[in-house]
Amino acid sequence: MDAVNRQIILAARPAGAPKESDFRLLESSIPQPGPGEALVRTLYLSVDPYMRGRMRLSASYARSLELGEVMVGGVVGRVIESHDPRVAAGEVVEAMLGWQDYAAAPAKTLRKIDPAAAPISTALYVLGMPGLTAYFGLLDICHPQPGETVLVSGAAGAVGSLVGQIAKIRRCRAIGIAGSDEKVDFITRDLGFDGGFNYNDTPDYYARLKELCPTGIDVYFDNVGGPITDAVMRLINNRARVAVCGQISQYNSEQVEMGPRWLHQLVIKQAKVEGFLVFQYADRYEEGLRQLTTWLREKRIKYREDVMVGLEHAPEAFIRMMGGKNIGKQLVKVSE
Amino acid sequence: MDAVNRQIILAARPAGAPKESDFRLLESSIPQPGPGEALVRTLYLSVDPYMRGRMRLSASYARSLELGEVMVGGVVGRVIESHDPRVAAGEVVEAMLGWQDYAAAPAKTLRKIDPAAAPISTALYVLGMPGLTAYFGLLDICHPQPGETVLVSGAAGAVGSLVGQIAKIRRCRAIGIAGSDEKVDFITRDLGFDGGFNYNDTPDYYARLKELCPTGIDVYFDNVGGPITDAVMRLINNRARVAVCGQISQYNSEQVEMGPRWLHQLVIKQAKVEGFLVFQYADRYEEGLRQLTTWLREKRIKYREDVMVGLEHAPEAFIRMMGGKNIGKQLVKVSE
Repeated sequence: MDAVNRQIILAARPAGAPKESDFRLLESSIPQPGPGEALVRTLYLSVDPYMRGRMRLSASYARSLELGEVMVGGVVGRVIESHDPRVAAGEVVEAMLGWQDYAAAPAKTLRKIDPAAAPISTALYVLGMPGLTAYFGLLDICHPQPGETVLVSGAAGAVGSLVGQIAKIRRCRAIGIAGSDEKVDFITRDLGFDGGFNYNDTPDYYARLKELCPTGIDVYFDNVGGPITDAVMRLINNRARVAVCGQISQYNSEQVEMGPRWLHQLVIKQAKVEGFLVFQYADRYEEGLRQLTTWLREKRIKYREDVMVGLEHAPEAFIRMMGGKNIGKQLVKVSE
Repeated sequence: MDAVNRQIILAARPAGAPKESDFRLLESSIPQPGPGEALVRTLYLSVDPYMRGRMRLSASYARSLELGEVMVGGVVGRVIESHDPRVAAGEVVEAMLGWQDYAAAPAKTLRKIDPAAAPISTALYVLGMPGLTAYFGLLDICHPQPGETVLVSGAAGAVGSLVGQIAKIRRCRAIGIAGSDEKVDFITRDLGFDGGFNYNDTPDYYARLKELCPTGIDVYFDNVGGPITDAVMRLINNRARVAVCGQISQYNSEQVEMGPRWLHQLVIKQAKVEGFLVFQYADRYEEGLRQLTTWLREKRIKYREDVMVGLEHAPEAFIRMMGGKNIGKQLVKVSE
């Protein structure tokens, strides 16, 4: 075991896009687990868009991080020492343990991972929060029907890449919007999406969407927002369903951005727009994980990881992901 | 019977707010009902916001009116002559017969009205399209629960005035937004709303809403849109439900207006925004009318009509209603 616990803390609240100086690496002593707790060593750390919201001062669905506080994040780790019968030393677990080498946490908050079922890193992706987000957001909010056109923004990202594949499993046409040609190739060639486009070299989103969705858009799973979503709203079909999962185009904004008003379009199309957080499905996680595990085993869901090695590179990995530079799920490998 | 049929046609597509010169009164011969049809003489004509959309060239959920075409509109009338066993001369019916003294229409499209049940003009208000719109929009889309705060914009209008009263019947707190002090008095003193404000003399909608809805907004029934709705979106509670019925603040716009983006707010609050048209509930009209009739008889729903006399004044009545000058349902009395 190491002598120290490296931790990455929030050093400054980002103005606009986060930068490395907004984070700082500290060394502290390795925590002692109390009664009912376990000590966990981080193996993989997940970096995700929601973290940008936690760095901000204004309240959201979860409290803001304090300056000097360890960055939040989901972790897959190994139990080093346990003071609770629920987990034993050597077992692999997943939990929100933050950007650090070690954490002591109540054993009841640790989700046990079976290393024989799938690579353990999938507990942060297909078989973790992104997988559950895609599963419930698409199926429970949008109820996609065979033959319908399902469009997803942020399509090469952790959630988006799964949304399109689940749409295909449900026999929909899946179209994705992503930020590079390489990402579009990834979703169409590797993941089986029916089409997609690179918004960074598309001058007219509306025209391109019209080509790719000639019968209109029945379901839109939005991770991005902004002008992409504006164009989508002009092409929704009657009784369209829009699930709003994220608005990454807005997360670095210091002020509220302006956009065209489209509420009247919802009336005309009798359409629904619904925001959601995966936590609202907590009592159905088991169902979701069971189905996702089956699809993964059957190879009906494929995935790709983009792994940076070393806890000290977590800020870089986060900045990279926020800038859309990753292809596949951005992870940080912290230890073997 | 008159010798001629007066008709009001669309003479010009309005640029911005409609004006009297956008309409023209023509005289034609009284139509002859064919087999299966009945001749109906108009008693009351309804003027409603949706008509503004039909005057526009761009497609909406219903086709645009042609220039020279008789204005659309719901009518309560008396059957003069019938060539179908479903209706008989002398009976009172409701149907979309347009702005004219007489119309021949298929008998199967005529809804029979019982003059003993309620004043016949209510077939265009509480016991007609506005009533059904309020009933299904509030109850089916928003599912208001006892103790929740229900906010309605356009609260003194035909639909809004009913939404607040149905919210009260469901033991919610009902707050209304309207365009004059007189309207606010009407909804709070006469209709039993718990509070309201006049947006025309309120500089800060957000601050006023915060005072009137100290525990936030659970349900918002939107008839208006624009800056009022922007302010509301900042105050919605977790799992809020927004029914979008109309966006009258936008109907005279020639261009798409811009407003602050608030989709991220839907994510944080896990909230839903759903547009609807009353027609989607056509197979449940009977249920709605039965309940509304009961509430009307029990005097749990009150109403007020704003009646202009004479078909020739229909354009004026429509312009008045679009300008928010009416208190209660704007009707035109065409004949006795």
